Amino acid sequence: MSSLPTFADVQAAARRLDGIVVRTPLLENERVNAKLGGRLFIKAECLQRTGSFKIRGAYNFLASMGEADRKKGVVGWSSGNHAQGLAEAARLMGVKATIVMPADAPALKVANTRASGAEIVLYDRVKDSREDIGLGIARKTGATVVPPYDHVWILTGQGTAGLELAEQAKAIGVALDAVAAPCSGGGLSTGVALGVKGVSPETTVHAGEPAGFDDLARSLSSGRKETNDKVTGSICDALLAPTPGDVTLPLAQKVLGPGLVVSDEEVLDAMEVAFREYKIVVEPGGAVALAAALTGKLPVKGRKVAVVCSGGNVDHATFARALARRG
Amino acid sequence: MSSLPTFADVQAAARRLDGIVVRTPLLENERVNAKLGGRLFIKAECLQRTGSFKIRGAYNFLASMGEADRKKGVVGWSSGNHAQGLAEAARLMGVKATIVMPADAPALKVANTRASGAEIVLYDRVKDSREDIGLGIARKTGATVVPPYDHVWILTGQGTAGLELAEQAKAIGVALDAVAAPCSGGGLSTGVALGVKGVSPETTVHAGEPAGFDDLARSLSSGRKETNDKVTGSICDALLAPTPGDVTLPLAQKVLGPGLVVSDEEVLDAMEVAFREYKIVVEPGGAVALAAALTGKLPVKGRKVAVVCSGGNVDHATFARALARRG
Repeated sequence: MSSLPTFADVQAAARRLDGIVVRTPLLENERVNAKLGGRLFIKAECLQRTGSFKIRGAYNFLASMGEADRKKGVVGWSSGNHAQGLAEAARLMGVKATIVMPADAPALKVANTRASGAEIVLYDRVKDSREDIGLGIARKTGATVVPPYDHVWILTGQGTAGLELAEQAKAIGVALDAVAAPCSGGGLSTGVALGVKGVSPETTVHAGEPAGFDDLARSLSSGRKETNDKVTGSICDALLAPTPGDVTLPLAQKVLGPGLVVSDEEVLDAMEVAFREYKIVVEPGGAVALAAALTGKLPVKGRKVAVVCSGGNVDHATFARALARRG
Repeated sequence: MSSLPTFADVQAAARRLDGIVVRTPLLENERVNAKLGGRLFIKAECLQRTGSFKIRGAYNFLASMGEADRKKGVVGWSSGNHAQGLAEAARLMGVKATIVMPADAPALKVANTRASGAEIVLYDRVKDSREDIGLGIARKTGATVVPPYDHVWILTGQGTAGLELAEQAKAIGVALDAVAAPCSGGGLSTGVALGVKGVSPETTVHAGEPAGFDDLARSLSSGRKETNDKVTGSICDALLAPTPGDVTLPLAQKVLGPGLVVSDEEVLDAMEVAFREYKIVVEPGGAVALAAALTGKLPVKGRKVAVVCSGGNVDHATFARALARRG
């Protein structure tokens, strides 16, 4: 295992991302605060370029590569936010990107990724292996594989969201007791912990996961790498990684508190609160940390707590389901 | 007619509001830009405290009152965003507020206004006059009436949104060709024009209105105060003032370009784009300027244009209608 990344790496990433990413706002709502009996802040990464935090890590990765490698291009596989973030980061840096996407991916996601100028290679989920296709492209063209989370350049890029969040809280005189971020493979949550703790060492940082896909929570509890039993079956389509990463798990063990686990129903309720009170569009996977705060799994009462709402790329039908939860 | 307010009045308001209102972000989307052939920016005032820009003017009004008057309280009438903005501004300043609201106002809006600590007086839309009730309270208690738009303190407070917008554009090196803001009585649009032109004198500023409620557009065109034929019948419930104000019209004639008029269908389409591309929740009245930009009524091609999305207080059923517009 190589040495773990540090706060200085997040600061370096922040310098690379300056002027490229949106400094997303930290939102607060008096009514929700009154109901919870504390102060809850939302870091609205759904307002980020490409609709999620993913461009932070992808751009930091591309900006950290050597120029010779950048000229050979990059390749990645994703049906969701990583695809869009990587494609847009590549466009901004003038790097050729190839994205391997399932042939049955939503047309809108394919179109959005293509709109950033990426070359799309479609594969059959049943017959093909996207890793084999992606690695084949890398071997043939010399392109560099950009992984979705398990890399220091990725997680320290994502960590800039935590650094910003902590700086924004400090600027308004708020000492945060706790921060939570959604977790799939652990890139965002571990990066955010590095960024937050560099500014505010006493703040506890937690990763939020959907029930049944709580591999990180169980890994933190057991001390070894746990794997989910299922690979599909949560509304949180962005949070289905089967297991923590080889880079992210050791870091998570060092910087994260106990995991937070929420149900699909709690996620839909959180999306409805985000709509009604905060006026932001949050996708299911982006709402798990908010759901933990609203349900008291992450206590807010008498405390100051911030959650990352990590993305807003939700289809119309799923958002309508959240709207229908209004009691 | 008293002398017209100036940019200096907006700057003074901004100092009063510093640390009170949210410096809402200026959002941009690469795909929408590519489609329009220019750069479109959204000033996301739906993310403001109480879900609309209205707290800017209300707080500026209360902060500009003499201390003796503040002690006697304030009174206002509104079923919507002005009620919530005024109630919350009064709570923040420790001023007693009485809000006259229709008995059939949506329960959520009444509850939200009450949650800020305001006293609510309900009236019967058919039998009662809200002005008579409000003025009666003012006479009896010595409370000051806080009007929704037709006052220098209100419009210069709203103008801080324009000042921020112009500063945010300048900070990223963007010289705006045009700005547009929604218009009911003209407080926001004239204030925004003052704020924008103080920073960027060459920028043209326009007011957007719903079809059938385009009293300002027609007044600007005819040179005299025009009145709408109808008092209800647009999805834009926040933009139904029957006529421009005595303070706002002379200012509008000086600082605004031609009016922009959009249909309810164009408004719903703009709300859907705000959901899908910008990940923000915009109410119908808040989306008219965006609708003008998306339909080409406010040309974006080859230009740099900013629109204010002024509020996000939309009920679930209306938002579901916007979601259903997705083609």
